[in-house]
Amino acid sequence: VTEPALDRLRALLGEIHDLHRASWLMAWDQETMMPPRGALARAQQRATVVRLAHERIASDALGALLDELRPLEEASPHESLDAALVRVARRDHEKASRVPAELQEELTRAGSLGIAAWLEAREREDFDVLRPHIERQLELKHRYVECFPHEDPYDVLLDDYEEGAKTADVERTFAGLRPELVALAQAVPTVDDSCLQGSFALRSQRSFVLDLLHTLGYRDDSWRLDRAEHPFASALGTGDVRLTTHLHEQHLGGVFAAIHEFGHGLYEHQIDPALARTPLATGASSALHESQSRLWENVVGRSRRFWTHFYPGLRRALPQFEDVPLETFYRAINKVEPSLIRVDADEVTYNLHIVLRFELERDLLADRLQTSDLPEAFDAKLEEYLGLRPPDVLHGVLQDLHWADASFGYFPTYALGNVVSLQIWERARADLPDLDDDLERGEFGPLRDWLRQHLHRYGRSFPPAELLERVAGGPLDAGPYLRYLRGKVAELAESRG
Amino acid sequence: VTEPALDRLRALLGEIHDLHRASWLMAWDQETMMPPRGALARAQQRATVVRLAHERIASDALGALLDELRPLEEASPHESLDAALVRVARRDHEKASRVPAELQEELTRAGSLGIAAWLEAREREDFDVLRPHIERQLELKHRYVECFPHEDPYDVLLDDYEEGAKTADVERTFAGLRPELVALAQAVPTVDDSCLQGSFALRSQRSFVLDLLHTLGYRDDSWRLDRAEHPFASALGTGDVRLTTHLHEQHLGGVFAAIHEFGHGLYEHQIDPALARTPLATGASSALHESQSRLWENVVGRSRRFWTHFYPGLRRALPQFEDVPLETFYRAINKVEPSLIRVDADEVTYNLHIVLRFELERDLLADRLQTSDLPEAFDAKLEEYLGLRPPDVLHGVLQDLHWADASFGYFPTYALGNVVSLQIWERARADLPDLDDDLERGEFGPLRDWLRQHLHRYGRSFPPAELLERVAGGPLDAGPYLRYLRGKVAELAESRG
Repeated sequence: VTEPALDRLRALLGEIHDLHRASWLMAWDQETMMPPRGALARAQQRATVVRLAHERIASDALGALLDELRPLEEASPHESLDAALVRVARRDHEKASRVPAELQEELTRAGSLGIAAWLEAREREDFDVLRPHIERQLELKHRYVECFPHEDPYDVLLDDYEEGAKTADVERTFAGLRPELVALAQAVPTVDDSCLQGSFALRSQRSFVLDLLHTLGYRDDSWRLDRAEHPFASALGTGDVRLTTHLHEQHLGGVFAAIHEFGHGLYEHQIDPALARTPLATGASSALHESQSRLWENVVGRSRRFWTHFYPGLRRALPQFEDVPLETFYRAINKVEPSLIRVDADEVTYNLHIVLRFELERDLLADRLQTSDLPEAFDAKLEEYLGLRPPDVLHGVLQDLHWADASFGYFPTYALGNVVSLQIWERARADLPDLDDDLERGEFGPLRDWLRQHLHRYGRSFPPAELLERVAGGPLDAGPYLRYLRGKVAELAESRG
Repeated sequence: VTEPALDRLRALLGEIHDLHRASWLMAWDQETMMPPRGALARAQQRATVVRLAHERIASDALGALLDELRPLEEASPHESLDAALVRVARRDHEKASRVPAELQEELTRAGSLGIAAWLEAREREDFDVLRPHIERQLELKHRYVECFPHEDPYDVLLDDYEEGAKTADVERTFAGLRPELVALAQAVPTVDDSCLQGSFALRSQRSFVLDLLHTLGYRDDSWRLDRAEHPFASALGTGDVRLTTHLHEQHLGGVFAAIHEFGHGLYEHQIDPALARTPLATGASSALHESQSRLWENVVGRSRRFWTHFYPGLRRALPQFEDVPLETFYRAINKVEPSLIRVDADEVTYNLHIVLRFELERDLLADRLQTSDLPEAFDAKLEEYLGLRPPDVLHGVLQDLHWADASFGYFPTYALGNVVSLQIWERARADLPDLDDDLERGEFGPLRDWLRQHLHRYGRSFPPAELLERVAGGPLDAGPYLRYLRGKVAELAESRG
């Protein structure tokens, strides 16, 4: 009796999966390829596809199937694929069935139009181009939150990115981190990073980045790298992984952004093929995803051993580094100093950028802050937390895409990802005694395999908190992260020459 | 009473439209951007989206709405948008409701996998990579044709591209054309086209093509130009027109392919915005579409006046033309000589390529020809009709994409498009006395506006035969086309230096 029900479940979930990936392609295309005047049609097309997926997730048909399959779920071993499938489908169904399909459609359309408006606002350096879109999205998010009347409004949004996470836990984590980070930021030595200022030919950067990515594990038959205004990664299948970055002539931020996005891409690439065409076939949560991007970008990608391997290639690509000793470069890319742009921030001050965004979006949602006052509030908080005042909206409120595409609730997962990345890294190092040497030799296979084995292959098979226990051996813990930062700062101070 | 029904019709047709455009994006992406190992997931995702569109077109809900709206259709003026909407929706519904959704899904999947196999077959120069895909598609096409038991099998396929066209009419047209073309091909003077052989830097070609397209009417805010193995055009909206071409270092075929695809793109770009998000918002038929691409590629793009304007730019881009007089170049690009590759064929012998494909695909469908014998049959017919034998499958059966993506029945519309292009051109010239001078001055606005006004804006609002009457003042007529070819051949013979 349960066998046909499971088949029907798989067919329905497969259809939903296909619609979601179609919408991911539309989103990827919008940010990389689409001509600007395609925005209106695209917003509607994507909204329709997402609504059809939503209707299926919320459908009574899925609800009835899940009821029918409850005995299977209860009788199956916790780790069975079928049990995981039913569990995840049930969670998605229970959330979606509270939200009217029209609201989901409208949110998608508003997010899509918001991306177009954000690009135009950046072009014109004018927040008012974006403002009505944020206002509309907040209005829709209020309606969305009201669909979950017994929950804290911000919890509702957070849960869309981080199943089971609570605002109060985030606040507690941030409260623990903030004084430590502020103290660390004050303890750091001054570092000369003048070698990172100059003019770096885009073509040379791009060719260096592609070589580097190939060494990390990027393959032409299943990966792409494109330009996007705001870097992101997307996977339309394990054999179709799409990274983006934004290379700048004035600095190397785009190189690190590419390594960051590689971490996201590798996660999706290494999901067990047996999960294909199910809702399990993606990363378990935003924080776990971000743990992977930050692990590659920072823990690996800003390490001395990593650059021992790659620095000769960078020197070939960008001859101005010929006279810059590796140690000078290494110290420069690890300089701790408050900065205006989040994605280019150092590892210590990065989370202060997150805290300020978290506070601002909570104020927006609680109507304690008006959208028209957002640019000034952003600048004021940046000055309060980092001592810097943005010279313009591009370096201020318009720097991130997230408030333009209706991703309220997403920012905190960046900071959680930083914390988790070190919990995972400590375990990987314990299991892989040669890891440091591997990095220095440009051998990334063992690390990739370890991550596949312990994290990536599971996709969404376990709730994020349980998966964290499995991969890191414990719950969220800022200890490893703070130890790592203290060690790095101390080492930079010691090696100060 | 009818007002809400019309609203419901528009909503349903809008949803179908959005799904179709999503599938167009997936197809465009597959041929331009997708990494090869994304093919399997893409085939399934696209098949799902097309099936969902098909289910809606075939649905009883749409049938009931159309019944309800019959009085509106009968009471409305023939030219009203609402009447056209109901008429086209009825046609699409009646066809789709005969075809099981699973078959439509399977055809889409097979077509998508066929594209991937064709790319691999070309890479490996091995027809056997593609063969099982063609066999599978023929099997599916047989099942498709059986859904229309009272019609000629080839008529069924042809009607998908050319509403109302009959195989017998195509045969009659071809029978009239063939002896004329063969005679013309024998009457042409020998022409020295050695200036078109050499090495033409791809980067210079691309920059020349983009300049040229901008002069024709391409705008960066709503068009793109990408590389594809086999050139095509697609439009995801009137503000999102995507051309592709395939530039070759050894010849300029990709330049003319780009002008060809511009013709397709302009048609979609100039559709009345009032038709947006309806099934009317695309070209009326494949032959009418092809009339536009061939008009721009050949009638405009191989004219002396056109190159009087563009030749200085070509010389700047490709200095090897500095010593080649315009007249020599003009004669070279109009040289009539049997050739192996259809898309690079001259205007006279081009249709012989079509005739042979039309005959072969009819034989395949009628089981008079086995797929395994197709490469040899292709080569034999090419030799019979054009006196040339392909040296390999790349120049033979693997040169076109159409049998790989299940587009049986499409080829004849190319030849019809050639015929129609001259019927339309004669009318445009009669209405635009300055047209020749315009071309020479690089002024394409008047021609674009004329085409918009008399053809493009209508989209699918009229059946193709009726639209042809409107734009060309009569039914399909090879007279203008043959007059044009004779004139051109005579002129080339006269100006022979």
